[in-house]
Amino acid sequence: MATTISSNLTRPEPQALKGAIDALAARFGNRLITSQAVREQHAHTTTWLPPQPPDAVVMAQETADIQDVVRICAKYRVPVIAFGTGTSLEGQVNAPAGGICIDLRDMNRVLAVHAEDLDCVIEPGVTRKALNEHLRDQGLFFPIDPGADASLGGMTATRASGTNAVRYGTMRENVLALKVVRGDGEIITTGTRAKKSSAGYDLTHLFIGAEGTLGIISELTIRLRGIPETIAAAACSFETVRGACQATILAIQTGIPVARIELLNAAQVKACNAYSKLSLPETPLLLLEFHGSEIEVAEQSKNFKEIAADCGGGDFTWTTRPEDRTKLWQARHDAYWSVKALRPGSGVVATDVCVPISRLADCVTETEEDLKRLNLISPIVGHVGDGNFHCSLLCDVDDADEMARGEEFMHRLVERAQAMGGTCTGEHGIGQGKQKYLEAELGPEALDAMRALKKALDPQNIFNPGKIVPA
Amino acid sequence: MATTISSNLTRPEPQALKGAIDALAARFGNRLITSQAVREQHAHTTTWLPPQPPDAVVMAQETADIQDVVRICAKYRVPVIAFGTGTSLEGQVNAPAGGICIDLRDMNRVLAVHAEDLDCVIEPGVTRKALNEHLRDQGLFFPIDPGADASLGGMTATRASGTNAVRYGTMRENVLALKVVRGDGEIITTGTRAKKSSAGYDLTHLFIGAEGTLGIISELTIRLRGIPETIAAAACSFETVRGACQATILAIQTGIPVARIELLNAAQVKACNAYSKLSLPETPLLLLEFHGSEIEVAEQSKNFKEIAADCGGGDFTWTTRPEDRTKLWQARHDAYWSVKALRPGSGVVATDVCVPISRLADCVTETEEDLKRLNLISPIVGHVGDGNFHCSLLCDVDDADEMARGEEFMHRLVERAQAMGGTCTGEHGIGQGKQKYLEAELGPEALDAMRALKKALDPQNIFNPGKIVPA
Repeated sequence: MATTISSNLTRPEPQALKGAIDALAARFGNRLITSQAVREQHAHTTTWLPPQPPDAVVMAQETADIQDVVRICAKYRVPVIAFGTGTSLEGQVNAPAGGICIDLRDMNRVLAVHAEDLDCVIEPGVTRKALNEHLRDQGLFFPIDPGADASLGGMTATRASGTNAVRYGTMRENVLALKVVRGDGEIITTGTRAKKSSAGYDLTHLFIGAEGTLGIISELTIRLRGIPETIAAAACSFETVRGACQATILAIQTGIPVARIELLNAAQVKACNAYSKLSLPETPLLLLEFHGSEIEVAEQSKNFKEIAADCGGGDFTWTTRPEDRTKLWQARHDAYWSVKALRPGSGVVATDVCVPISRLADCVTETEEDLKRLNLISPIVGHVGDGNFHCSLLCDVDDADEMARGEEFMHRLVERAQAMGGTCTGEHGIGQGKQKYLEAELGPEALDAMRALKKALDPQNIFNPGKIVPA
Repeated sequence: MATTISSNLTRPEPQALKGAIDALAARFGNRLITSQAVREQHAHTTTWLPPQPPDAVVMAQETADIQDVVRICAKYRVPVIAFGTGTSLEGQVNAPAGGICIDLRDMNRVLAVHAEDLDCVIEPGVTRKALNEHLRDQGLFFPIDPGADASLGGMTATRASGTNAVRYGTMRENVLALKVVRGDGEIITTGTRAKKSSAGYDLTHLFIGAEGTLGIISELTIRLRGIPETIAAAACSFETVRGACQATILAIQTGIPVARIELLNAAQVKACNAYSKLSLPETPLLLLEFHGSEIEVAEQSKNFKEIAADCGGGDFTWTTRPEDRTKLWQARHDAYWSVKALRPGSGVVATDVCVPISRLADCVTETEEDLKRLNLISPIVGHVGDGNFHCSLLCDVDDADEMARGEEFMHRLVERAQAMGGTCTGEHGIGQGKQKYLEAELGPEALDAMRALKKALDPQNIFNPGKIVPA
């Protein structure tokens, strides 16, 4: 599939690059790293896209570091790429034109927690697990869970979401304000701690999901929630994907405030049974989580149970005991590893699309038919309350025929989702991998607008060039 | 206060204006209106800002009409201003440089309702009451309620919210996608019907709250909700504003999914008693609404009652009977008229700020002290779950001294909110009235960014010039 990645980017002149690296070395000493190993660690590694390492990495410790890196890069017109944990899936941290990677992992301070206001102010390198660890004693948590222990800066930059989004929203709904280092090193403040505002253009949302192409996030103010009094987990098998989707639609429509509702298709359940030594019926499975008071959670479970029964659901198991909850969700947590184990040594390409929920059953069913026809293995898990699902496609990079079939599959998957009124990515972002699909989804006028915005805020094109908008 | 409105805008050359109006007349016939009366109706009338009528009004009936008006205005470089219902409060529909007003009231078709997906596609002139009327039979509703029966296009353009926002979010959280006519008359599609997306820059949010300064919204896809099985209304008086705010904070923090939580300060309760012939204790009052199943609503009410008692709340009344609910909320619904009745003939200036909820009691209390010191009358109502409150200031435009005191009050109100980490407007927008406060809130870098965005998407500065970003 590597043939589909191209860019018209040109690398900086060697002279300019040398100038930038010399200036950075003078400023950052041994926090500027140019070793091959470290550069490769900072190229994209978790997906099918070939790694494109930066020319150097700077380990930032504070906002002034970001400002100085950006100023030096701007002076020499060298690309600058922000790096959190490197868990993005569409090549967001690759350096197709080389340049300087700013590693933000050491900017991991929680600057303030405002428990009464349910918000906190953090540096971009704070990871979601570290944040939730920090918050637990105060009875608070940050609800967005994309699976990986990603940094909050990275999650913001890719507009991440995950299993809890059906109830709590995505990063889009949970970032109140940002500080962003712009091209001249000065800092844009996008908002306040007020929960809502009508004060001017929504700069916050412009930087959420911009994948570091418009500036570098140096500080975040994000929303928190109270840890629910009671958490219940539930599981229910269905004869068909359609039944599981119908139950999901009815649950959402009747306003059950389900906190998670995850679909595992039959292939995924089978893989989980093998990997996690479970004995789940090898048919589509819904895993759910309910949050609230004891009474509310019981009510939600009861209501969902009735819906599930009407939609051909089998036994409905639910529990509030933490150890039983963990057991029930085991299959979901092991999903990625269970796919890896299906064919050890093979790569796993993770991709996602999102469709209006009424089309979800069609979309998953047709996708399963495609997989069969193309003789490919790709279990499916879905954040079905949002109409969002993932394919974990096994791909042997040395098998040209399988790679070609994989590419056909991916194209068809995206085209199908778009034809159903959906999007080419619900939560992974565009990066390099999905640039070719953006125009079909939104039209040339939207791309014109995006190009105009990029030019307006990054006229030198130094911020993560070659991402999101095709040249 | 009129002295504070200024702009460096220049009107179009008479020749250019005549060219535009002639072309519009040829295209639209008697749907182009230039009578003084109609032009004045389309200038801003609901606030303290002096009306600035457009040079002509076009009654649009379909998207092609908007496109042609924009093309003609672009050709002659004449301003073009979108008009919904004219209920905005900061001069958003004024025409400080003249130009053409596009009245969108006849673009009021509901194009599609997708009940399973909980979304619908509408034209911009659909009002929220008309939409909810249309949806009722399907058990659905659109939750954003700013009070006025505003158009959904206008509500989007001003990033409106209102009483239900504490549970359902503002327009920011409830618009999925827009179609926007850009400067050359072509249409930008900003998103799909997918509930979430990571596909490129968030154009949807860029146009939400842009007050028509970046293009004209011609179609909206918005989120709907199921009408709750049970709605309960509740009321509780408090000795102090601080007690009412503390109860609100605890309710939010413990995750009670309250649908509305409105504060009326003592002055507002007094005004309501007089106007609506009620006998409420003349102390701060919280009015609440709970949505859910019968059991959930009972649970929420019970939990809130306990919190209220801990915070010095008095009798807690709650009911699910529609007629009793209406009675309980009577005071809130009559708030505006009750203020008008305090001094018949006097103007009422509505303004709003929003602060982190932990600072709300301080902010309201200090505001009340200011009113006393300045000898001004301004009852306060607040969407306190969001930290947002409104002052309804009585102002006699012929009393220069009162106007000066009113201006001082408004300045201090905004400065106080901003000093507390809040915003100069939670839901009314910037328009003309609050431009002078934007830089203090976000800094010059944010304003630079906003100017760059405006220039990128509206290089001719034809879309609603003189709004949001100070020249």
